[in-house]
Amino acid sequence: MSIALDYAKRLISAPSVTPATGEVFDVMEAMLKPLGFDIHRFTRGDGEEGSDEAPVENLFAIRKGPEGSRHFAFAGHLDVVPPGDGWESDPFEPTTQGELLYGRGAVDMKSAIACMVAASHDIPADAGTISFIITGDEEGPALHGTRALIDYMRGQGIQPDLCLVGEPTSVNRLGDMMKIGRRGSVNIWLTVEGTQGHVAYPHLADNPIPKLVAMLKELDELMLDTGTDWFQPSNLEVTDIEVGNKAHNVIPAEARARISIRFNDLHSGHSLSERVAAIAENHGGRALPIISGEPFLTAPGAFSNMLAKAVEEETGVTPEASTTGGTSDARFLRSVCPVIEFGLCNATMHKRNEAVAIPDLDALARIYTKAALGAFTLKTTQEEA
Amino acid sequence: MSIALDYAKRLISAPSVTPATGEVFDVMEAMLKPLGFDIHRFTRGDGEEGSDEAPVENLFAIRKGPEGSRHFAFAGHLDVVPPGDGWESDPFEPTTQGELLYGRGAVDMKSAIACMVAASHDIPADAGTISFIITGDEEGPALHGTRALIDYMRGQGIQPDLCLVGEPTSVNRLGDMMKIGRRGSVNIWLTVEGTQGHVAYPHLADNPIPKLVAMLKELDELMLDTGTDWFQPSNLEVTDIEVGNKAHNVIPAEARARISIRFNDLHSGHSLSERVAAIAENHGGRALPIISGEPFLTAPGAFSNMLAKAVEEETGVTPEASTTGGTSDARFLRSVCPVIEFGLCNATMHKRNEAVAIPDLDALARIYTKAALGAFTLKTTQEEA
Ligand SMILES: [Zn+2]
Ligand SMILES: [Zn+2]
Repeated sequence: MSIALDYAKRLISAPSVTPATGEVFDVMEAMLKPLGFDIHRFTRGDGEEGSDEAPVENLFAIRKGPEGSRHFAFAGHLDVVPPGDGWESDPFEPTTQGELLYGRGAVDMKSAIACMVAASHDIPADAGTISFIITGDEEGPALHGTRALIDYMRGQGIQPDLCLVGEPTSVNRLGDMMKIGRRGSVNIWLTVEGTQGHVAYPHLADNPIPKLVAMLKELDELMLDTGTDWFQPSNLEVTDIEVGNKAHNVIPAEARARISIRFNDLHSGHSLSERVAAIAENHGGRALPIISGEPFLTAPGAFSNMLAKAVEEETGVTPEASTTGGTSDARFLRSVCPVIEFGLCNATMHKRNEAVAIPDLDALARIYTKAALGAFTLKTTQEEA
Repeated sequence: MSIALDYAKRLISAPSVTPATGEVFDVMEAMLKPLGFDIHRFTRGDGEEGSDEAPVENLFAIRKGPEGSRHFAFAGHLDVVPPGDGWESDPFEPTTQGELLYGRGAVDMKSAIACMVAASHDIPADAGTISFIITGDEEGPALHGTRALIDYMRGQGIQPDLCLVGEPTSVNRLGDMMKIGRRGSVNIWLTVEGTQGHVAYPHLADNPIPKLVAMLKELDELMLDTGTDWFQPSNLEVTDIEVGNKAHNVIPAEARARISIRFNDLHSGHSLSERVAAIAENHGGRALPIISGEPFLTAPGAFSNMLAKAVEEETGVTPEASTTGGTSDARFLRSVCPVIEFGLCNATMHKRNEAVAIPDLDALARIYTKAALGAFTLKTTQEEA
């Protein structure tokens, strides 16, 4: 059995529905320790199970190269989404059938972390510094996960030069896509208050719905931008409207809506929230934003070229440099150094019978090895990467 | 005790929560019979109690005057809305306290019917034809009430010249308002269907909300009319919007809204429904109208002048000729002949401790007598009334 496959099975065997603590980190530590890593584990959050403040475990591991050598970081998460019902095998019992390995986390992203550890076997200790930035909360609120790891690193004066996140970015076959950025995401709750009354006496009431409708029309017609070289245009969707008035002859007292904006790096969650709030107030309403993620971009250059070459050599496929899809912890790591995401095929992620093609594991481990070795020799500065 | 007060107590004593049948009509028949009326009672509806098809009793009574004499009709309902809790006396036990008579139906509208019967005592049998068009379902769905009475009259070739409905139209004191018309009412349910999807991939979805928003904005901006000599402008209110999408990152599959239009006699429920449906379809949606009532108008003229004079003589107050408020059975009767509504003060209608000022009963009976006598001598044709 390949090392990567063995590691993947060991990680899948440790149940770790988000937020993860304990056993799965014990397994991770046991894999890294023999490879010469210094390991720091810590738990954040003191709330009840199920709350946003539930305890989260994080692990930072580093194997320092010679003085002055470059620092390449692997990043990822050991927590998984709940398995749900209807699996053909136990989701926390790694099961192979033909060329597939089944189990929760098989693609998102325990197997990718297994490939990173396997890759470390083939990275000479004197080639450079490698580290693991591993959280137990990427699938949940992500309040005490990668952000806490970044705080820890800053406190220790640890500064990676480049970072590779192992999210499952491949689509149809291993290697066909990497993510050089992600759009940001903000949800905004809109409320208009009026005065309730009877439809036969509208002058005694103040219907909030026409104000909300005019507000939503203006928001829907906003052209936020026309896209950039690397990003598609930012997009605003009205996702809900709620009045909840059952009485046919009553003008309601309040009307509410919710919008979702996915935006590129021409905006920030704050700038969009301010813009929407101004429109809402203009129509007699108010806006409450919750920013889920800021956009990030590692513009194509030496880093992505190097990674693409590694992918091509191992798979024969040229990865598309994409910025599509949802958010990931790369949005936090980008504040530390250039970040690219590359990993397994995402077809079964978050689904029942999540499975990875076993041959992809060794291929991905080799790509990760080449990426680290390539990173050590890249001449670019962070800003040029 | 005055005749009107005695009759009012007898009617209130017979519980008749809508739809009414039986006892209260027995009481009514016993009051009319000695006055020389021919009485026809019939029940319509064969559904279960509580359904729209529950049995409803109706009563038509006529006392014919000499050949060729004019026909004046009193109209009203013997059903009442449920009393609800918290009464200080039994709602079906007429109770006098000082100058007030308490009981469900004291103003809406058993006491007015009592005044009509009392008025008949003072209308000479040879002065003209008088009739009573009395239903047991005005407060309910009104499917088998006044409409069935009109069908019956048509089948019998009975055609009143003028009709007075005894709804409680007075506001602050007896005589201050009569209704010469009522607006129509239609509720329209609007639906737009789209295709559900993820907000990160809007090109794979079809958000129905922007279409609904544009539709509602166009509807809200409609200027239906600027009012008429007798009616205020027609008015459209958006009364509800409902998407019901809890998932922040999901574009919903359907969006729904409801509008309510109160409209004057420049429109019909059908014409407005067609107009709204065309706008809805233009925005990719559909409209389902439910017409609750068509508008009616008996334009000011000989009839209203005669009635106003009778009111002034008895109360010293000049009644305002209004078309405000909800709907009433006058909307059906207007297809038969000119109709005006006039009755007691409506402050306590449909409320707990419903009560009428006892002195108003004799005054109203005298007004009704004068109205009938006046109607017999009016020279106008129906169309001029
Ligand atoms: Zn993931
Ligand atoms: Zn009534």
